Amino acid sequence: MSYNIRLLVSCPDKKGLIAAVSQFIAMHDGNILSADQYVGEDSATFFMRLEIEGEGFGLERDEFAAAFAPLARQHEMEWSMSYTDTPKRMAILVSKYDHCLTDLLWRWDAGELDAEIPLVISNHPDLRSRAESHGVPFHHLPVTKETKAEQEGEMLRLLSESDVDLVVLARYMQILSPKFVHAYPDRIVNIHHSFLPAFVGADPYRRAHDRGVKTIGATAHYVTEDLDAGPIIHQDVAHVTHRDTVDDLVRLGREVERRVLAHAVRWHLEDRVLVDGNRTVVFE
Amino acid sequence: MSYNIRLLVSCPDKKGLIAAVSQFIAMHDGNILSADQYVGEDSATFFMRLEIEGEGFGLERDEFAAAFAPLARQHEMEWSMSYTDTPKRMAILVSKYDHCLTDLLWRWDAGELDAEIPLVISNHPDLRSRAESHGVPFHHLPVTKETKAEQEGEMLRLLSESDVDLVVLARYMQILSPKFVHAYPDRIVNIHHSFLPAFVGADPYRRAHDRGVKTIGATAHYVTEDLDAGPIIHQDVAHVTHRDTVDDLVRLGREVERRVLAHAVRWHLEDRVLVDGNRTVVFE
Amino acid sequence: MSYNIRLLVSCPDKKGLIAAVSQFIAMHDGNILSADQYVGEDSATFFMRLEIEGEGFGLERDEFAAAFAPLARQHEMEWSMSYTDTPKRMAILVSKYDHCLTDLLWRWDAGELDAEIPLVISNHPDLRSRAESHGVPFHHLPVTKETKAEQEGEMLRLLSESDVDLVVLARYMQILSPKFVHAYPDRIVNIHHSFLPAFVGADPYRRAHDRGVKTIGATAHYVTEDLDAGPIIHQDVAHVTHRDTVDDLVRLGREVERRVLAHAVRWHLEDRVLVDGNRTVVFE
Amino acid sequence: MSYNIRLLVSCPDKKGLIAAVSQFIAMHDGNILSADQYVGEDSATFFMRLEIEGEGFGLERDEFAAAFAPLARQHEMEWSMSYTDTPKRMAILVSKYDHCLTDLLWRWDAGELDAEIPLVISNHPDLRSRAESHGVPFHHLPVTKETKAEQEGEMLRLLSESDVDLVVLARYMQILSPKFVHAYPDRIVNIHHSFLPAFVGADPYRRAHDRGVKTIGATAHYVTEDLDAGPIIHQDVAHVTHRDTVDDLVRLGREVERRVLAHAVRWHLEDRVLVDGNRTVVFE
Repeated sequence: MSYNIRLLVSCPDKKGLIAAVSQFIAMHDGNILSADQYVGEDSATFFMRLEIEGEGFGLERDEFAAAFAPLARQHEMEWSMSYTDTPKRMAILVSKYDHCLTDLLWRWDAGELDAEIPLVISNHPDLRSRAESHGVPFHHLPVTKETKAEQEGEMLRLLSESDVDLVVLARYMQILSPKFVHAYPDRIVNIHHSFLPAFVGADPYRRAHDRGVKTIGATAHYVTEDLDAGPIIHQDVAHVTHRDTVDDLVRLGREVERRVLAHAVRWHLEDRVLVDGNRTVVFE
Repeated sequence: MSYNIRLLVSCPDKKGLIAAVSQFIAMHDGNILSADQYVGEDSATFFMRLEIEGEGFGLERDEFAAAFAPLARQHEMEWSMSYTDTPKRMAILVSKYDHCLTDLLWRWDAGELDAEIPLVISNHPDLRSRAESHGVPFHHLPVTKETKAEQEGEMLRLLSESDVDLVVLARYMQILSPKFVHAYPDRIVNIHHSFLPAFVGADPYRRAHDRGVKTIGATAHYVTEDLDAGPIIHQDVAHVTHRDTVDDLVRLGREVERRVLAHAVRWHLEDRVLVDGNRTVVFE
Repeated sequence: MSYNIRLLVSCPDKKGLIAAVSQFIAMHDGNILSADQYVGEDSATFFMRLEIEGEGFGLERDEFAAAFAPLARQHEMEWSMSYTDTPKRMAILVSKYDHCLTDLLWRWDAGELDAEIPLVISNHPDLRSRAESHGVPFHHLPVTKETKAEQEGEMLRLLSESDVDLVVLARYMQILSPKFVHAYPDRIVNIHHSFLPAFVGADPYRRAHDRGVKTIGATAHYVTEDLDAGPIIHQDVAHVTHRDTVDDLVRLGREVERRVLAHAVRWHLEDRVLVDGNRTVVFE
Repeated sequence: MSYNIRLLVSCPDKKGLIAAVSQFIAMHDGNILSADQYVGEDSATFFMRLEIEGEGFGLERDEFAAAFAPLARQHEMEWSMSYTDTPKRMAILVSKYDHCLTDLLWRWDAGELDAEIPLVISNHPDLRSRAESHGVPFHHLPVTKETKAEQEGEMLRLLSESDVDLVVLARYMQILSPKFVHAYPDRIVNIHHSFLPAFVGADPYRRAHDRGVKTIGATAHYVTEDLDAGPIIHQDVAHVTHRDTVDDLVRLGREVERRVLAHAVRWHLEDRVLVDGNRTVVFE
C-alpha cells in the first residue's frame, strides 16, 4: 500500500535551509511531492512542510530520527513527521448542538477526513446515537460546577488511554481549564460562532443581530488559556440582511460553522497548520 | 423627460397600512414600479418604500404633501419623498488616501451614482487635482487641535451653502464633533476599514495582522456620536493568508473599502436605506 | 397553534394591483406580515407574494377561493395559497451519492426545511438505511434501459399515492422523461454540479479541471424537458487552484452542491420561487 | 537599493530537483525568500519559483546564465529570471470602455502594479486624456476591416519599439490575429466579461440575463489563437437577482472585471503565473 511521509520543520531563519533539508531527502532517494516554506515576518522563524513519497525512500521509520538529528541540531530545528498510512487519532467533544458533529462524521465516512475517531465525549447524553451510528464510542461525562475538575480529569484519562492526537471542540459549551489546554498544545481545535475578534464570548448571534451587522462569520482556532484568543486557523462569513432574525443568523451560522471547522480539521490532519506565535501558517 | 417618485414611510405597525398607502397611490392614478415593506422585529415599526412612475401620476409636486397629510396623520407616519429627476447633493470629505474618492468619482462619471457633487472638502491639499479633474470644486480646510472647531464651522457653512443632502467620509481621518453629526442625522456615511465591531478605532489592519485573522473587511455605516458604532449599511470581506503583510492587508483592504462604500452610497442615493434604531433596513 | 397564509399571485401588469390585493386582505382583517412584488422586465407580468397572519384573518380556508374569485377574474390572475400549518410533501430521488440526501435529511431534522417527506426513491439500494434512520420510507426502483419506462410509471404512481407536491433530485443520475417532467411542472428541483450554463451534461468536474477553471459551482434549477436548461433558482461557487485534482473538485463541489440545493429547496417550500418564462423570481 | 531575484524553472519531473536548484543558490550565498513548487498532474512537469534576496547573492547578472547552464542542461530545464529593480514593461490595449484602464492606472499610481507602462493603444480616440493624465503616451490606431492587418502591424511595431514584455487587453474589442498572438506567447492577458467557459463570445451579460443566471463572473486568461479558450489565470463572481437588468449586470460586472484583471496582471508582473498546457499554475 502506497503512503507518503510528511515532514514539518521550524527553526531560526538563515540561508541554505531549503538546500540542507532537500539535499538530505535527495541523499536518501526521497521523491518530494510537495514543498512549502514560509519565514515568519516578525518571528524570523523558518517553517517548512515536505510531503515525500514513501516508496523508494531510503530511511526506515525507525531510522529517520537518528539520521536527521545532526542536521536538526545544527540548525536548532524543531521537527515532526507523520506517515499517511498512520492516520491521526481525533476525539470530538460536543454538547447538544449536533450540526458540527454530524458534518464531521459524514465527511469522515465520505473519506474527506483521514483520521481515526476513537471516541466522542459529551457533557450531555443527547448525541449518543449519532456517534454510535457511525461506529464511534460515546462517553457521557456530565459537568456541574462541583464535578467539573473531576470530569476533566476523567476526560484527560480517556483521551490519553485512547492515544488521541487531536481534540476537536464541535460546539462544546464548557470552558476548558488551563491544565487541560496545556495537555494538548496546538492540538485542540475550537469553532467559535463569530468572526473573531468580534463578539468574543457568549451569545454572539444575538449580539451580532443587535449590532445590525450585515455579515456573520465563524472562526476555527487553536485553544489557548486565553478564551477565544488562540491562533486562528480559518474563518469564513455569510451575508445577512435586516430580514434575518436571530434564529436566521443561528441557522445560517450553522452552515458556516460546520464548513469552517471541517476545513480547519482537515488541514490539521494533513499537517498543514503550523503555529507562529499567536498566528498560524496554513500550507493549503 | 421621464422620472420616478420615491416615497419612504415609517410608522407604528398595524393592519391595513399597505392597503392604505397603495390605495392612495392608485386613487391618484399612480403606477407602482416597486414596493418594499418591512416590520422591525424589535421596534414594531412599519417601513415602506415605493417607487412610482412620474408620468401619469395625478398629484403635482406641490400638491402631494397636502393630499397625503390626512393619511400620514391618521397612522402617525414619518415620510419623505424624492424625485429621480432631482438628484441628491453629495459632499465628499477626504484626507490623503485617494482610493475611495477616486472610485466614487469614477463611478459618478460612469453614471453609477445619481447625484450632484457640489464640493470635495479635505484637511489636506493633496487631492485637489483629482477632484478638479472631474469638475468638482475642492476646498482645503486644514485642521489642527486649535482650529478644529472653527474649521468644522466653516465646513458646515460650506455644506449648508451648497445645499448638501449627504456627506460621504471617504477615508476622512478626523473625528467629527457631535454638533456636526447632529446637523446631518442618518446622512453622513463613513467607511471603516475593518469588519465592525472588530477593530473599532485606529490602525485596524495592523491589529488584524497581529491577531492573525484570515479574513479582513470593511464597513459602511452612518455616523453617530458614538465612534464606529452607528447603524451599519453594508459590509464585505476579503480572504487573506499568513503570507499577507500589513501592507498587503492595506492593499487588499482598499479594494473592499471602495466597493463597500460605493454600494452603500448608491443605496442611500436611491433612498433604499432606512434606519431602525441602531440597525438599517436596506431595500436592495 | 399559530399559522400564516401565503398568497402567490401573477397576472398581466397594470396599475392598482397592489392596492386591489392589499385592500382585499385588509377588508377581511388580514395582517400582512411581508409583501413582495416584481414586474417581469420582458414579460410585463406582475408577481406578488404575501404572507398573512392566520389568526384574526376573516376568511376560512374553504371561503377564500370564492371570495377572491371576482378579483382574480377581473385581473386575469393566476394564484395559489398555502397554509404554514400544512407543510408541503416532498419526495427525494437519489442514486448512490449521499451528500445531498444526508444534508437535506439533517436540515429537515433540524427544522430548517418545513416539509413532510413521505418517501425517498432510488435506482440503487445503497441509501436505504440513511433514509430509514430518519424515519423515511425508502423505495428501490432499479432502472435498466428496458425497464425505464415501466419504473417511471411506478415512480409516478408512488408519488401520486403519496400526494407529493415537490420532487427533489438529490444527485439522481437518471434523465426523466417528458411525461414525468410534465406531471410536476416547476415542481422538480435538480442540483447540477456545475455553474450552468458552463459544463452542461456529464462529468462537469473532469471537464472543469481540464479547462483549468479557477472557480467551480453548482446550480439548482427546475427541471424542464430540455436537459440542464430549466429556470435557475440558485447558484454558488467555490474557488479552486491548480493544486486541486479532479477528486478535490468533487470534494469541494459536494460542499457547494448541498448548500445550493438546500437553499433552493427551502425557498421553494416557503413559496418564495415563481417562474417567469425561463427565469425565476426569488422573493428571499 | 535593495532588490530581489525571481527564478522560474520548469522541466520533466524527477527526484532531487528542489535539492539541485536550492543547493545551487546556497552555493552562491543566495538567501531564498520564498520558494514554490508544483508538479503538473497530467504533464508530470516540475514547476518552481524562487525569490532570492539580491544583496549578498554571489552571481552578477551577467554571470548567472553561464553558471546555471550545466544544471539546466542536465535536467532539461526551461528557465527565466527577473530582477525586481527592473520592472516589466506593460502595454495596455483598450477600446471605449474605461473601467479596466482606469483601475489599472490608478493601481499603478498607488504602487500596486510594479511595471513601466510605455504606451496605451486604442482603436478609438476616447481614452486619450485618461492615459495622458497618468503620463502614459496614447496611440490611436483606428481599425476597419480593410486596415486591420496593417494596423496590427503598426501595433506590433510600436510594442516592439517600446520593448514591451506584457500586453494587457483591458476590454479591447478587436480579435487579434494568430500572428499577433504568436508574437507574445503567454504574455497577452485578456479580461473576458463572463465566467468562462460559460458565454464564450459576444454579449455575455445579455445572454446571462436571458438564461436567468444568479451569478455573473469575469475571467482573466492568456490569449491563444482559440478565442476565449486560453489558459485561465483568475476568475471571480458576483451574485445577482431577478431584479437586476442587463444594465445592472453590466454595472456589477465592471466591478468584477476590473478586480479580476488587476489581480491577474499583478500576478503576471510578479512572475507568479506559469503555463502548464492549457492550465495555469499560479504561485500566489
